[in-house]
Amino acid sequence: MTSQPPAPEKQPVFDAPVGVRPAVRAVPAYPFDPVQVPTKLDQNENPYDFPEDLKQQAAARMLERPWNRYPDLHADELRDRIAAYEGWEPGGVVVTPGSNVLIKLLTELAGIDQTVLTVDPTFSVYTLEARMLGARLVQVPLRDDFSLPVDALKVQLERQRPGVLYITQPHAPTGHVDDEAAVRELMDAAGDWVVVLDEAYYQYSGTDGRDLIREYPNALSLRTFSKAWGLAGLRAGYALSGSELATNLQKLVPAFNLNILTQAALEVALENPGYVQQRVQEGVAERERILAALADHPTCQALPSRANFFLLRTPDAEVAYRHLVEHGIVTRRQDRLRGLEGCLRVGVGTPAENDALIGAIQALK
Amino acid sequence: MTSQPPAPEKQPVFDAPVGVRPAVRAVPAYPFDPVQVPTKLDQNENPYDFPEDLKQQAAARMLERPWNRYPDLHADELRDRIAAYEGWEPGGVVVTPGSNVLIKLLTELAGIDQTVLTVDPTFSVYTLEARMLGARLVQVPLRDDFSLPVDALKVQLERQRPGVLYITQPHAPTGHVDDEAAVRELMDAAGDWVVVLDEAYYQYSGTDGRDLIREYPNALSLRTFSKAWGLAGLRAGYALSGSELATNLQKLVPAFNLNILTQAALEVALENPGYVQQRVQEGVAERERILAALADHPTCQALPSRANFFLLRTPDAEVAYRHLVEHGIVTRRQDRLRGLEGCLRVGVGTPAENDALIGAIQALK
Repeated sequence: MTSQPPAPEKQPVFDAPVGVRPAVRAVPAYPFDPVQVPTKLDQNENPYDFPEDLKQQAAARMLERPWNRYPDLHADELRDRIAAYEGWEPGGVVVTPGSNVLIKLLTELAGIDQTVLTVDPTFSVYTLEARMLGARLVQVPLRDDFSLPVDALKVQLERQRPGVLYITQPHAPTGHVDDEAAVRELMDAAGDWVVVLDEAYYQYSGTDGRDLIREYPNALSLRTFSKAWGLAGLRAGYALSGSELATNLQKLVPAFNLNILTQAALEVALENPGYVQQRVQEGVAERERILAALADHPTCQALPSRANFFLLRTPDAEVAYRHLVEHGIVTRRQDRLRGLEGCLRVGVGTPAENDALIGAIQALK
Repeated sequence: MTSQPPAPEKQPVFDAPVGVRPAVRAVPAYPFDPVQVPTKLDQNENPYDFPEDLKQQAAARMLERPWNRYPDLHADELRDRIAAYEGWEPGGVVVTPGSNVLIKLLTELAGIDQTVLTVDPTFSVYTLEARMLGARLVQVPLRDDFSLPVDALKVQLERQRPGVLYITQPHAPTGHVDDEAAVRELMDAAGDWVVVLDEAYYQYSGTDGRDLIREYPNALSLRTFSKAWGLAGLRAGYALSGSELATNLQKLVPAFNLNILTQAALEVALENPGYVQQRVQEGVAERERILAALADHPTCQALPSRANFFLLRTPDAEVAYRHLVEHGIVTRRQDRLRGLEGCLRVGVGTPAENDALIGAIQALK
């Protein structure tokens, strides 16, 4: 969950062959201007690398394997291990190189020429894939407190042709978590829709949608190794669902999609998951420490969050963003999103990084 | 290029939520029954691993990098290196985890609600993605000598709504290479179509479509690290095209799609490409040696090929396939494909593996 909507006005126009679908031509190219500063708080990454001894173990395992042979067709061995870790049926696990790939595949599964329903603001990959692949995109504004607009979503579930409904818990980019009753009410109303419960940050909120997913054969949970596991560089995400839904989603996964190097590393991670909990606890404690330290800020408001990031509402997002870059900290602007005027999304870093962050924000008037 | 069409009659029927698109529900799940034998000649892999010293170099480079940070948005550093290797503009290179991912993205780019045009038989991923993503799939039979049916394809280019045209050189699974004039005639006729020149095996044929691609802004070459480079386990393929086409294709590539481990390994490979040529030369010499040794076979015909595989036409593919498995060799059945009755697709292995192959086929009556 690291993308932000590109700024259309800045993009050059490209001429493409007429055969290129208008829906793709209409989307601006993704702008990318990496900022070189010491403190990266813009992608909600884990601030700590995979433990050094585990990196060594993973590399040793990679070297034992042949690199000239294709991986498992569908990473079957790894799926079994994820299933065991999650207490899930192996036939209900689908693994891909990043959960953003799963969002593309879900759009292929149930969005093309159908509907993608989500809230606004939302994770930009949902809407980008919907637009490019020719789904009807329907967005319902979040409530002012960032909670799910349950009644308005139910109206759309009734009105639109079934497709994909995204429910993000914790929500990105707000960090909000809804009552399970609200999520359940939507699942009950979803009928023929494929319901995606995106749980990229669930470790930080202490929530867990698995029991809910088990009740609904049309629902799945999206999880990732990129956040709490600290393995964003390896690209791996997975879906948990009933086997019928997983079987159909799996058809859309390109064969041999997960490379052997990542598979070897994830095996080591799943054999040694102990490091994750300690990091999550620190991340949650640090988030609360930052919010407390900024509670009395005269002009900025650090909004409550249950993820490993939070929104900082500032008088002027451009000024605040630049001020933080000058202090060696890069964050993510979210001020173009509905209801997020003035907002930056700020990841939780190491304690030292967070001290620097607090100091820099306190120096912002 | 390792998939084969699944056998629909063997597949269980799954109930999926109504929201799952009928085009996906209609496709059978991919059957996968790996055969455990010593000699794997079924996936057209390079029979040799990436050189051991380069594996060590690659692993050392992986360990130097943080695994908790996302990779480059679009593998920009690697794209630059591929561009330098290929003598290409970096803005015309698109890299993904496997060239089968590029085939999916090309279907998204110009196939959805449009047309996918290819020959028959053809690489199954072209047709599978077309079917699942809702493209109109049009296939024109190859000529009896496996050459391109140029006139019949031109009729379809005229008749159908523009979309994607696949030209595979060398062709899979026949190993046939057409005259460049035939390919050029199709490109001249393709007008608004996106033309994909799939060159997965070009090193073995000694052909090179880059000059042609440079002339046509609607054309691209598909290349892979899985075959001649001997890196199938790492999953990396790329497209070379003009920058307008590449820019539109790149929009469809999920962000951070190529993991840091594969990137590190490919950097080492591109810095040390010398091993590839020697292996290709051996592969070509071995292919010709096998074909010569089987020239007088009483019942089987080894068909000429310019790739790292060849078709073996047998009196009964099932019998021949089982006979070879009993001799410790797995090949790929292709006998269900149009015009390939009795055919197995056989990869070229190491000299020792090829000796075993020749012996086993000679024992087949």
